[in-house]
Amino acid sequence: MLSVSQALERILSHVRPLEPRSHPLSQTLGLVLAQEVVAREAHPPFDNSAVDGFAVRSAEVAEGTWLDLVGSIPAGSVPEFELGPGQAAAIMTGAMLCPGADACAMVEDSERQAGRVRFTRRVRPGENVRRQGEHLQPGQVVLRPGHRLRPADLGLAASLGYPELACIPRARVTIVSTGSELVPPGQPLGPGQIRDSNSYALEAQVRACGGEPVRLGPVVDDRDALEQALRQALEQAEVLVTSAGVSVGEHDHVRDLIAKLGGELSFWQIKMRPGKPLAFGLAGSIPMFGLPGNPVSSMVTFELFVRPALEVMMGRFPGESRKQTARLTHEITKKTGLTTFLRCRLESTGTGLLATATGDQGSHLLRSMVEADALAVLPEELERLEAGHEVEVLPLHP
Amino acid sequence: MLSVSQALERILSHVRPLEPRSHPLSQTLGLVLAQEVVAREAHPPFDNSAVDGFAVRSAEVAEGTWLDLVGSIPAGSVPEFELGPGQAAAIMTGAMLCPGADACAMVEDSERQAGRVRFTRRVRPGENVRRQGEHLQPGQVVLRPGHRLRPADLGLAASLGYPELACIPRARVTIVSTGSELVPPGQPLGPGQIRDSNSYALEAQVRACGGEPVRLGPVVDDRDALEQALRQALEQAEVLVTSAGVSVGEHDHVRDLIAKLGGELSFWQIKMRPGKPLAFGLAGSIPMFGLPGNPVSSMVTFELFVRPALEVMMGRFPGESRKQTARLTHEITKKTGLTTFLRCRLESTGTGLLATATGDQGSHLLRSMVEADALAVLPEELERLEAGHEVEVLPLHP
Repeated sequence: MLSVSQALERILSHVRPLEPRSHPLSQTLGLVLAQEVVAREAHPPFDNSAVDGFAVRSAEVAEGTWLDLVGSIPAGSVPEFELGPGQAAAIMTGAMLCPGADACAMVEDSERQAGRVRFTRRVRPGENVRRQGEHLQPGQVVLRPGHRLRPADLGLAASLGYPELACIPRARVTIVSTGSELVPPGQPLGPGQIRDSNSYALEAQVRACGGEPVRLGPVVDDRDALEQALRQALEQAEVLVTSAGVSVGEHDHVRDLIAKLGGELSFWQIKMRPGKPLAFGLAGSIPMFGLPGNPVSSMVTFELFVRPALEVMMGRFPGESRKQTARLTHEITKKTGLTTFLRCRLESTGTGLLATATGDQGSHLLRSMVEADALAVLPEELERLEAGHEVEVLPLHP
Repeated sequence: MLSVSQALERILSHVRPLEPRSHPLSQTLGLVLAQEVVAREAHPPFDNSAVDGFAVRSAEVAEGTWLDLVGSIPAGSVPEFELGPGQAAAIMTGAMLCPGADACAMVEDSERQAGRVRFTRRVRPGENVRRQGEHLQPGQVVLRPGHRLRPADLGLAASLGYPELACIPRARVTIVSTGSELVPPGQPLGPGQIRDSNSYALEAQVRACGGEPVRLGPVVDDRDALEQALRQALEQAEVLVTSAGVSVGEHDHVRDLIAKLGGELSFWQIKMRPGKPLAFGLAGSIPMFGLPGNPVSSMVTFELFVRPALEVMMGRFPGESRKQTARLTHEITKKTGLTTFLRCRLESTGTGLLATATGDQGSHLLRSMVEADALAVLPEELERLEAGHEVEVLPLHP
């Protein structure tokens, strides 16, 4: 059996960032940039006013005399006059400074009368003027490959004339739930049946980490039907995730099929609870994850193994800044030899985080996940952790 | 002039949560639930096996004798036999327990030979059996209105047979950038022109807080053209956001139009920097925000005023758990009488967060936002804050 970290290491050794492609700027929020963003012109492209007011010769404002208004410069226009002595021009924020002017005075500091204007305070040379290139010089690199795009980055790229950006795309993750007992949530339950819930939770987990989920199934526990479903799923997937059918039951075909479709990497037992069985394989470059069928095991193994793989595929660092520590509010006993992932609520205090288990931890009891803020990592070698013990926690809803 | 908190209070007094509507379960991640989710049947719906193994009469396993295999129960089926003395049946995880059996033994603890099975360890009565209703009883409420849906919630709702949920929808936010100097990022710059960047940053900000943005414009600074554009925008919007045209310039028509379309609430100056001018109005129930045109001012006023309004409209508590404190790493001087929002980088240390300004804070310098993790709130009444001063910070990328 592999430890949790050995299993994760093996998985990550087989995944690579997806091929970058061009995206319309509007669609790039949260994606990882795969190009440089460079100022191709000076920014601002021309001297312009930082205020609504008047373009002036600053020395004349200092005298406090009336100036003649010889024009008005709206934003987006090119002034076709030059200020001479004793002259001023109305100007809008962002509008191009006219030749002859060396400063702008604010409208709030002015008095205007029939074609003339006077000011109530002085203006320094250069005041309220944004100089060409003061923000960025041509050739300056402002964003680099590997950066995860945030709203201000999109604004900056737009201001530099980038209608599209090369980014690492979202991973398309196909989710196939398996099990002859499963019916979709909108259908009545027959005897012996339960509803497919894992594919909905997994779909949301994929979405929460920025992937693009496609939900298929449920597929019955029939080897041929399942093989056909997985082959179809592989046609459109960049990652394939199945739930159930990976354990030791007579009708557990998923692990064999993952081995068949994915070569020699095939099946592991992992020293963890919940979630011991996990199948992993590669169909060409497509990672395939066979997650266990218990609802909690399925969600926990997604967080521990699939999510980091998706993060790498989307150009991010796995688990980036997710790890925190918390102190247990109560004693816990567990099985030695298995890393246990305790569903817990977190409470923030002046001296750090406190973690409290969310009731019964059975791997079929989804309520323990519904109520959880985080998974507390209880180390393999321990059997008993006292109240106050400090443990690592993985927040589920960062 | 209003203080920042007075302005926010006025805005929030005019917005209400949107009308809930039914959403397909797959589309509800991150939405606020507007109904109860109730277990309508017992959960699990029948006694079933927690393991892949054998349904047994536990007392007989204790004797260590060979048992006759009388059947196999795959998941999703109904066993049509009853276990008699000396009998066992193969069973899959999740499959219905057959009458006569009172426990399940794990396949890992068994030895199987030609129609018979023997066990290497004892089984307690009830072991590895999930009892009907042990997770949930019919009528039990598991999720309540007001809860923001997370992946496990979707799994739970699916397991209880909810193909759809009534939720408060995402707010549709129409964004109109205004300014005769603006060209879209894909077009060449003429003299006096700059590129429209605010609408891209605002669109991403709307998306980042869970709204549904629609980007229009840029619209030229012509009163009639602008009125037509705003009227069109209002036809499809639940919130209208404009950028620029709200200040004191000759061509600033947005605030007049917001007043015209939105009744008496119309124009405020707010004691803050960046972002002093802000127009707000209501067209029927549609909040209209006229944000200032400087790129930093536009983004900062969005965070401070539009985002909380969107959060309320989407059923959330504004600013939920966003406020933190940090210590300044350097001295700052500012204008008294204005709350200043300093773009800063945050650094986490053993003794809390440290905040450092991101260089030149000019409201036209988008790089100060690009490099920022947070806005540090520098109080209205202060003129000088020493290094080490503790300030409130609003993380920009929670």
